[in-house]
Amino acid sequence: MASSHGCSPLFSCSSCLLMRIPPSSSTAHLDYPCCLWDRMGTRDYNPKQMAIREKVFNIIISCFKRHGAETIDSPVFELKETLTGKYGEDSKLIYDLKDQGGELLSLRYDLTVPFARYLAMNKITNIKRYHIAKVYRRDNPAMTRGRYREFYQCDFDIAGQYDAMIPDAECLKIVYEILNELDLGDFRIKVNDRRILDGMFAVCGVPDEKFRTICSTVDKLDKMAWEDVKKEMVNEKGLSEDVADRIGEYVSMQGGQDLAERLLQDPKLSQNKQACAGLTDMKLLFSYLELFQVTDKVVFDLSLARGLDYYTGVIYEAILSQTIPALVSTPAEQNGADEAGVSVGSVAGGGRYDGLVGMFDPKGRKVPCVGVSIGIERIFSIMEQKASSEKVRTTETQVLVASAQKNLLEERLKLTNALWNEGIKAEVLYKKNPKLLSQLQHCEETGIPLVAILGEQELKDGVVKLRNVVSREEVDVPRADLVDEIKKRTL
Amino acid sequence: MASSHGCSPLFSCSSCLLMRIPPSSSTAHLDYPCCLWDRMGTRDYNPKQMAIREKVFNIIISCFKRHGAETIDSPVFELKETLTGKYGEDSKLIYDLKDQGGELLSLRYDLTVPFARYLAMNKITNIKRYHIAKVYRRDNPAMTRGRYREFYQCDFDIAGQYDAMIPDAECLKIVYEILNELDLGDFRIKVNDRRILDGMFAVCGVPDEKFRTICSTVDKLDKMAWEDVKKEMVNEKGLSEDVADRIGEYVSMQGGQDLAERLLQDPKLSQNKQACAGLTDMKLLFSYLELFQVTDKVVFDLSLARGLDYYTGVIYEAILSQTIPALVSTPAEQNGADEAGVSVGSVAGGGRYDGLVGMFDPKGRKVPCVGVSIGIERIFSIMEQKASSEKVRTTETQVLVASAQKNLLEERLKLTNALWNEGIKAEVLYKKNPKLLSQLQHCEETGIPLVAILGEQELKDGVVKLRNVVSREEVDVPRADLVDEIKKRTL
Repeated sequence: MASSHGCSPLFSCSSCLLMRIPPSSSTAHLDYPCCLWDRMGTRDYNPKQMAIREKVFNIIISCFKRHGAETIDSPVFELKETLTGKYGEDSKLIYDLKDQGGELLSLRYDLTVPFARYLAMNKITNIKRYHIAKVYRRDNPAMTRGRYREFYQCDFDIAGQYDAMIPDAECLKIVYEILNELDLGDFRIKVNDRRILDGMFAVCGVPDEKFRTICSTVDKLDKMAWEDVKKEMVNEKGLSEDVADRIGEYVSMQGGQDLAERLLQDPKLSQNKQACAGLTDMKLLFSYLELFQVTDKVVFDLSLARGLDYYTGVIYEAILSQTIPALVSTPAEQNGADEAGVSVGSVAGGGRYDGLVGMFDPKGRKVPCVGVSIGIERIFSIMEQKASSEKVRTTETQVLVASAQKNLLEERLKLTNALWNEGIKAEVLYKKNPKLLSQLQHCEETGIPLVAILGEQELKDGVVKLRNVVSREEVDVPRADLVDEIKKRTL
Repeated sequence: MASSHGCSPLFSCSSCLLMRIPPSSSTAHLDYPCCLWDRMGTRDYNPKQMAIREKVFNIIISCFKRHGAETIDSPVFELKETLTGKYGEDSKLIYDLKDQGGELLSLRYDLTVPFARYLAMNKITNIKRYHIAKVYRRDNPAMTRGRYREFYQCDFDIAGQYDAMIPDAECLKIVYEILNELDLGDFRIKVNDRRILDGMFAVCGVPDEKFRTICSTVDKLDKMAWEDVKKEMVNEKGLSEDVADRIGEYVSMQGGQDLAERLLQDPKLSQNKQACAGLTDMKLLFSYLELFQVTDKVVFDLSLARGLDYYTGVIYEAILSQTIPALVSTPAEQNGADEAGVSVGSVAGGGRYDGLVGMFDPKGRKVPCVGVSIGIERIFSIMEQKASSEKVRTTETQVLVASAQKNLLEERLKLTNALWNEGIKAEVLYKKNPKLLSQLQHCEETGIPLVAILGEQELKDGVVKLRNVVSREEVDVPRADLVDEIKKRTL
């Protein structure tokens, strides 16, 4: 019996999550049930998805290049110890390689730690680079929300000792440009500063050793109501109600430069050195954002915390305003209440991490860094959905070399070869005597705009019949003019 | 004491290969000795290497697109069982992931098996696709020859039931085009057919069960003399001298279409069905290669065997004629006699594999395939070496926004922002008051051709001083014409 969501009859998909593929010998046939991807948390990209991916990457890379960035690449695995102690509680999500002799290795978890390792290893003290590559997390996959175990990150970082907030402002400008150009609807970029958070925790009476764990709890405010966050602070993290309420007042605050100015006058915060440094920088940041004309989308939001340990200053996160309907529902997710239209949530995030490079340098030499990571998988999900009803071309072929008559394979191959040699993107069907209809159908299916038709008469006349696939118009073109004519028509 | 090849004093590099990095806690400083990469067999790509890589990829992708190919992508890991039994003796080189619960996974070993798995899983019966991605092999690294444990493959494959040898000929045409355009000097493409090899083994008296292992031995003829290959056949593989000598006669043969015709008349081979089928196809292949104008580089060579199990028909391999001097010598390699100038060897290879997709289909449905893989790492090595003395730009920045005077940061940022908004690739130094000299130096170091200089006078006049970095010529350009002027000068 075939299962309800299209699995092979060999497998009972009602128990999808427990099911195992039977062990196979080298000659046994493997079968891939539909739910395998759900379990593995990875996916293939088909040609249509790749065409969309290429478009998205082109927009992002153009932006990075417009801002003068170079690019680097690093291996997919790092020494296990390189990743140790960089990701807080999330370290359990790191994929390890099996110990087959030699160094212990893990798949990279992000591109930031490899970047810091690269800088320290090569003693680089300033660079502006982007890096687009896949990273790996053994997280619970949620494919409908574009959350995979293997996913792309697009990182842009500026390393170097510079005057305050100038590179930080450029990172925000980049997020703004990319989200605008991708045309994903309205968005907001929340900004905060780890020093402001720490100062706030201090003046609210949070003990020093609880800063990081309370920070993690505050970070949940984008998914949980304040009441629940407060409960976690009090019941699980052991804060007093008083302290939690004081935090609650601060984290409800949102604004711009004005809020930074107001908080610099706050009787408690103004007494805290860390907070003052953060707030002064926040003011300066907004003055640069004003010059960069992006303040309409940027909000100083005291509830933004971000999970990672390594941030030391400004942090930010971009959120799309729209929700997307679930693409495919997995049984596990169907239980979720919010799955009819899930919020795509954060599509970019980053911040300043001035201490990370020093962790990899034998002498602890610091290289200040600030950067941003674009959450490209969620963006792919949205773009794919937008394109789901559209026809997307997956090849760039300009012309198909065809014939209506038999025994012209050699002539077709000769002409195709000549076109390739002249730089024309050309195809020919791999059949001795294909029907004209199937040649035209191939063009219609794949969007090839032109057909170059050869026949005995055309060969005799030294011409090629050039057909426009859409209009069905045909015109005889002298062989010598063919390349120019194709170029002209497929500009 | 610092070691002779630049390691940190913490490590004794005389015992490089045995050395371990000391275990570190999250706050301990990691140090990366120079020999770590040699041991791991991986490498970072720096911006200059990336610029070269981008150039190489562009040439290859343009060629694939010119031939009408789509592209796909697949996860970096596959189910372990997907890879089982596909690579013969080389299976021991597969990287496994640690069992952390869930499916057992391995890093992909090539792009061909994932492609076949993709076709079977999605029931695709015809496609022409390319796939450029990294693959993983726990081989002995030989970085000077461009052999890494993580390396790129660039694969182009044609799947589908077509008339004989037409897609096969296109694959060879593609290798020819790419090697020509990369401008790597002279090359040859050797062609053979598994059916010819099998027929040859049969008529020489090799027992059926030894076909594959003798095939592996024949494959060593590009690195070993015939005498040594013969020794291996007789002493290790248990062939009689007679049989080996008969093989020796055949594998010394090289030619073109004429050789195929001659062997079709060979009293022994002509009695073997397999060999005849292979030879007839070889004749046909050469007739298409003639039409594609590539026969000047293609040789029918009976010694070509190729290691992989899955080939069923035509096989081929491209070899560069030039040798390259070793880039960096590792102690292990310095012992090698041939290291002064190593032959780069094979830079592309492939063939027909009609049975592989069927191994992944529950009903064993076959999808005939033929493809080629470009050995891009060796090509990178050569290109990097060529470029080692050249200056390669790693950014595309058109203009640096600069100032000779103090207190003009805001004006610099404003102008930079305006240029970004107009699509100009622009940079600005992240300093409040940088010296003009350091701004000009930045341009010279990174190859930025233009500087847009702002000063009090220029601001008053509504102009920008545009300076050509190389010629040092300066001209005042009205602010309104600046974008056009920059575009004109950086076409």
